[in-house]
Amino acid sequence: MKTFMDDNFVLQTETAQLLYHEYAKEQPIIDYHCHLDPKQIAENRRFDNLGQIWLEGDHYKWRAMRTNGVEERFCTGRDTTDWEKFEKWAETVPYTMRNPLYHWTHLELKTAFGVTKLLHPGTAKEIYDECTAKLRTPEYSARNLMKKYNVRVVCTTDDPIDSLEYHIALKNECFSVKVLPTWRPDKAMAVENPANFRTYIEKLSEVSGVSISRFSDLLQALHVRHDFFASVGCKLSDHGMEEFYAEDYTNVEIETVFNKVYGGKELTKEEILKFKSAMLVEGARMDWEKGWTQQFHYGVIRNNNTRLFKQIGPDTGFDSIGDFSIAKTLSKFLNRLDIDNQLTKTILYNLNPRDNDMIATMIGNFQDGSVAGKIQFGSGWWFLDQKTGMEAQMNSLSALGLLSRFVGMLTDSRSFLSYPRHEYFRRILCNLIGNDVEQGLLPASELPFLGKLVEDVSYNNANEFFGF
Amino acid sequence: MKTFMDDNFVLQTETAQLLYHEYAKEQPIIDYHCHLDPKQIAENRRFDNLGQIWLEGDHYKWRAMRTNGVEERFCTGRDTTDWEKFEKWAETVPYTMRNPLYHWTHLELKTAFGVTKLLHPGTAKEIYDECTAKLRTPEYSARNLMKKYNVRVVCTTDDPIDSLEYHIALKNECFSVKVLPTWRPDKAMAVENPANFRTYIEKLSEVSGVSISRFSDLLQALHVRHDFFASVGCKLSDHGMEEFYAEDYTNVEIETVFNKVYGGKELTKEEILKFKSAMLVEGARMDWEKGWTQQFHYGVIRNNNTRLFKQIGPDTGFDSIGDFSIAKTLSKFLNRLDIDNQLTKTILYNLNPRDNDMIATMIGNFQDGSVAGKIQFGSGWWFLDQKTGMEAQMNSLSALGLLSRFVGMLTDSRSFLSYPRHEYFRRILCNLIGNDVEQGLLPASELPFLGKLVEDVSYNNANEFFGF
Amino acid sequence: MKTFMDDNFVLQTETAQLLYHEYAKEQPIIDYHCHLDPKQIAENRRFDNLGQIWLEGDHYKWRAMRTNGVEERFCTGRDTTDWEKFEKWAETVPYTMRNPLYHWTHLELKTAFGVTKLLHPGTAKEIYDECTAKLRTPEYSARNLMKKYNVRVVCTTDDPIDSLEYHIALKNECFSVKVLPTWRPDKAMAVENPANFRTYIEKLSEVSGVSISRFSDLLQALHVRHDFFASVGCKLSDHGMEEFYAEDYTNVEIETVFNKVYGGKELTKEEILKFKSAMLVEGARMDWEKGWTQQFHYGVIRNNNTRLFKQIGPDTGFDSIGDFSIAKTLSKFLNRLDIDNQLTKTILYNLNPRDNDMIATMIGNFQDGSVAGKIQFGSGWWFLDQKTGMEAQMNSLSALGLLSRFVGMLTDSRSFLSYPRHEYFRRILCNLIGNDVEQGLLPASELPFLGKLVEDVSYNNANEFFGF
Repeated sequence: MKTFMDDNFVLQTETAQLLYHEYAKEQPIIDYHCHLDPKQIAENRRFDNLGQIWLEGDHYKWRAMRTNGVEERFCTGRDTTDWEKFEKWAETVPYTMRNPLYHWTHLELKTAFGVTKLLHPGTAKEIYDECTAKLRTPEYSARNLMKKYNVRVVCTTDDPIDSLEYHIALKNECFSVKVLPTWRPDKAMAVENPANFRTYIEKLSEVSGVSISRFSDLLQALHVRHDFFASVGCKLSDHGMEEFYAEDYTNVEIETVFNKVYGGKELTKEEILKFKSAMLVEGARMDWEKGWTQQFHYGVIRNNNTRLFKQIGPDTGFDSIGDFSIAKTLSKFLNRLDIDNQLTKTILYNLNPRDNDMIATMIGNFQDGSVAGKIQFGSGWWFLDQKTGMEAQMNSLSALGLLSRFVGMLTDSRSFLSYPRHEYFRRILCNLIGNDVEQGLLPASELPFLGKLVEDVSYNNANEFFGF
Repeated sequence: MKTFMDDNFVLQTETAQLLYHEYAKEQPIIDYHCHLDPKQIAENRRFDNLGQIWLEGDHYKWRAMRTNGVEERFCTGRDTTDWEKFEKWAETVPYTMRNPLYHWTHLELKTAFGVTKLLHPGTAKEIYDECTAKLRTPEYSARNLMKKYNVRVVCTTDDPIDSLEYHIALKNECFSVKVLPTWRPDKAMAVENPANFRTYIEKLSEVSGVSISRFSDLLQALHVRHDFFASVGCKLSDHGMEEFYAEDYTNVEIETVFNKVYGGKELTKEEILKFKSAMLVEGARMDWEKGWTQQFHYGVIRNNNTRLFKQIGPDTGFDSIGDFSIAKTLSKFLNRLDIDNQLTKTILYNLNPRDNDMIATMIGNFQDGSVAGKIQFGSGWWFLDQKTGMEAQMNSLSALGLLSRFVGMLTDSRSFLSYPRHEYFRRILCNLIGNDVEQGLLPASELPFLGKLVEDVSYNNANEFFGF
Repeated sequence: MKTFMDDNFVLQTETAQLLYHEYAKEQPIIDYHCHLDPKQIAENRRFDNLGQIWLEGDHYKWRAMRTNGVEERFCTGRDTTDWEKFEKWAETVPYTMRNPLYHWTHLELKTAFGVTKLLHPGTAKEIYDECTAKLRTPEYSARNLMKKYNVRVVCTTDDPIDSLEYHIALKNECFSVKVLPTWRPDKAMAVENPANFRTYIEKLSEVSGVSISRFSDLLQALHVRHDFFASVGCKLSDHGMEEFYAEDYTNVEIETVFNKVYGGKELTKEEILKFKSAMLVEGARMDWEKGWTQQFHYGVIRNNNTRLFKQIGPDTGFDSIGDFSIAKTLSKFLNRLDIDNQLTKTILYNLNPRDNDMIATMIGNFQDGSVAGKIQFGSGWWFLDQKTGMEAQMNSLSALGLLSRFVGMLTDSRSFLSYPRHEYFRRILCNLIGNDVEQGLLPASELPFLGKLVEDVSYNNANEFFGF
């Protein structure tokens, strides 16, 4: 029987253990997509206690707590203390067995704090106190946590109107970890609400210095900001979407739609689709001009729970997996760019694993030999960022594409304690390959090549692909 | 090599064996959803022979026989004897290897009759005779079979117009197994056929004593019956549906639709959707008022084979898995209730396993801490009620929710011999957990907690959740 | 640790090894669906070198090379030599580890050429030279390769207007391998382009000797050719489709649609659907009259990359998996035939594995006992023709139907070196069953029956089912 979370955690075979310890473990981390707050890095935030750093914004934990019968006030409430929340979380932890939270929790305790006790009500106070004491030392500041985990690059997620002041500050003071912005223009496409859209466009006009009265002005303003992002080191864009958009449209139509929504009128569904279709193409062209990598996170349905949305707002644990059919639209979108030779490096992240094989074959349609792995199947996203999800993604990618050219893992996280997910990912990767070798499905003689493959997927591929 | 169907059947590891034998095996059975005929329980039916009890209504077996080249007259025909049918079934059994029928058949033979021989043409007569002889003894009456399998509660599936006379009789004579009705108002929603609908409404009017001439009367009549069901111990509702329905509608519209269909006119597709949407909401509110649990079985396409439907009617093995997209509609339906704080405990059963992860995350949107596991992902249903189906459901639930709060297994069966499916489920559950422990993915030190988890999923959770 | 690609490749257990070596290995091959060029068989083609036979038309390899960063000229270019292309392929091979190409490559080297070295840049020249030398000997002619692999029957894929001259020639000279045509009338349904359709219909008129001016003439011409195909030994039809088509239509409508498109006018989407729906039914009736087996390959989206389509045409590696919902349409189509008792033996091949369980249950709706396994779930197709794809298909078929009645493997290939895929399939089949036996999920005492099952799925079922 293997021991829980020892050095060979997840690694079922000797080959897997060798691959992990000899090749994967020491690789630095490139976290090319996350939601860290750059202000916290710039200000080198310190955390008051374990409850705060763990429960402040973690909708994964809140969902588990609600499912376990914990009242909302112990999840997001303002009338409960960090300790009270933590206590409820500690009660919940044993009930998360077989959920990734159980692994993440204990991986974080072990790798960040050296705590190997299991968290449950009987150990809650002791663990809370020990970790809180550590968190209050300089070693546990935001920046030191990043260094502790051997992070080389992080890419945050930023709105085109963001000043990027913290990125610039970090750059100026030569912080050893590169903290780069990512261009996420979701709000520039959010024409569902004319008033909000207008407010946004007015802000964009202000920060870009471009007076916006027509669609072409909007594009020009975005271009100015795109250039600015590039000047701060941005190399990636990102888009959060329900579905893909690839309607036919004319420039005249889009000008008209823009004028209508900017004038405060609600758009029809068809107009919204046309506008988003145009914006996706225009944004993709900007990314292509600069040689950036564009990312698409699609397939989520958000804010399903109106009652709690009204109480506590978005991103609080009420989003889930959609079941959209998107293959033809996605193909049309990518082809529209490729036909003009304007398809830049691209990463596709699906949220419903039933689409894994569709995506893993879709990327093959637009590989053109110009860059190895030019079109990427993104690592298991959100709900799929766990052992079975990552295994399914890597198995589909392996069977239908080239695992060897995969740019690998990212945390997508808001927390400075999420870096062990790279370790988790690497262990799972090594375990898959190790099993194949020991079953005679891969040649044991090629271990050096497989070791290199593990290094590549852990670090080298991302390092070469993005050009940081 | 493990022995087929010995004490450690399905249990691949020592931990799995320990969990099953120490924690799962002795738990009583709560079969909270089945299609047993309460009359047969009330009258304590005895069966003539093994052919009759096995083949009388078992469309799973008929499908396998047809696939194996067996003529219809040996499946559902009236010109063949029970023995002749059984003989054809026995010929088919070896051809079902790797199908759950092979396991169910031998589990039933072993646990009900103590027969450990394999069924095939060479053993058919001997097994038939031995089991038939036993079936003719009192020990094998319907009620005694239920007691033999340590059943505490069964919930049948009943129409609102049902008299529930057998449930009442069983209650009055204090039969040790609780036999409770379940509210299944499918026919009250079946407005596709105006004539049948009118006939049904007239019967409903009669049994409820409510004169029905408008939609609000229909609701009142249903309320009367809902109260009556509650008085007989009903704690669950159930709905069989292709898709979910969550159209926008006004009360005036529904009144109009009701008058139209009740007047004998065919409804448009849109009218049908609106009517069903309204009925789902109204029914859900009644369930919420009483604190019942509502169940939704969705995703089947029924009666695909018109030729055989005309010959032998519905529920004869010509239904299969649909491929509907329902996430947004389902979300809207649940949210519509939740927004008024009227969402009662709910179980969602999907028929297409490609929806497992969507459902496992959808339930998380409406967990509000009021009841542990308030919204449930139902155990593998129908075609998914087999080893790979149950494993997939439990793995999705584990990765995306809390397995620990799962209310577990039900037979959904028409047969008094289906209770070993609970054993089968428990073995699969213990095997999954046992594998995790032995692979170091769960801590071996927490075996007592895992044992409790197994007990909970086998019995305690259902016992507490439904409030029988 | 198991050795890579030794005699027990893929076979994890002793039972699997016994099943493969005692029962599967020696079975002849019936390759009932492939894309071999009958001319090459008739002319007994010899190949110049390993680059030619491997890379001439293999879009699987091209896709992998493009993904690996290889320029198009080394895939499909005319300005590069066979050796230059091969060299790029050899560079790519190690990067295909975990992709089926890695297995296929080494299985082909081993079974065709006796080469057990791994292919990579260091061995490329040596392997190229050794295999090229062998290819130039008579032993490696097209026909001798077929004999070497113990092939009994191959069914090519042919257009109704094809002369079948090579099939006839092969028949006349009594070539020991039966080479039979398959009726693939895709072009007779391709009404999207009126001009191309007209050209095709004119050719059909010519070869059939039926003057075509209306729809009924078209059917008559097809009948003539259908009869002709039958006279050359054809036993199967095949259809490549995005989705299924089962619109309601009248004969008058179809006559009108035919006249319109034949007159050169573009059809509406609805007209196209009606026409295809009618053609599917008419074709299916012809197949039923002759007792043929009809095959449907559905779910692909083709020619996604317009830029490269314009350069190098179709079937060059730019097709991928679609995400269509087809259950109700498929059911309607099959039912429409069955209702008149005109549903012939049928094989359904899906391209998106998320549909596996839907298809595996759909076939059960139309099993009528007339032929064992009358409606078949086709073996993993195209992107699914690899270890995980074949396992998923066989597991779904097992759990939801009868694996024992499966007609098994086919290559779907353009290459004379693809026959080891039958070996690969059989190893995977034996491995699945072997695992079940060793885990006690199947009885070890029934090994003789399981051995027969393996033989049946490898050869006997296909041999009996198709009636060659």
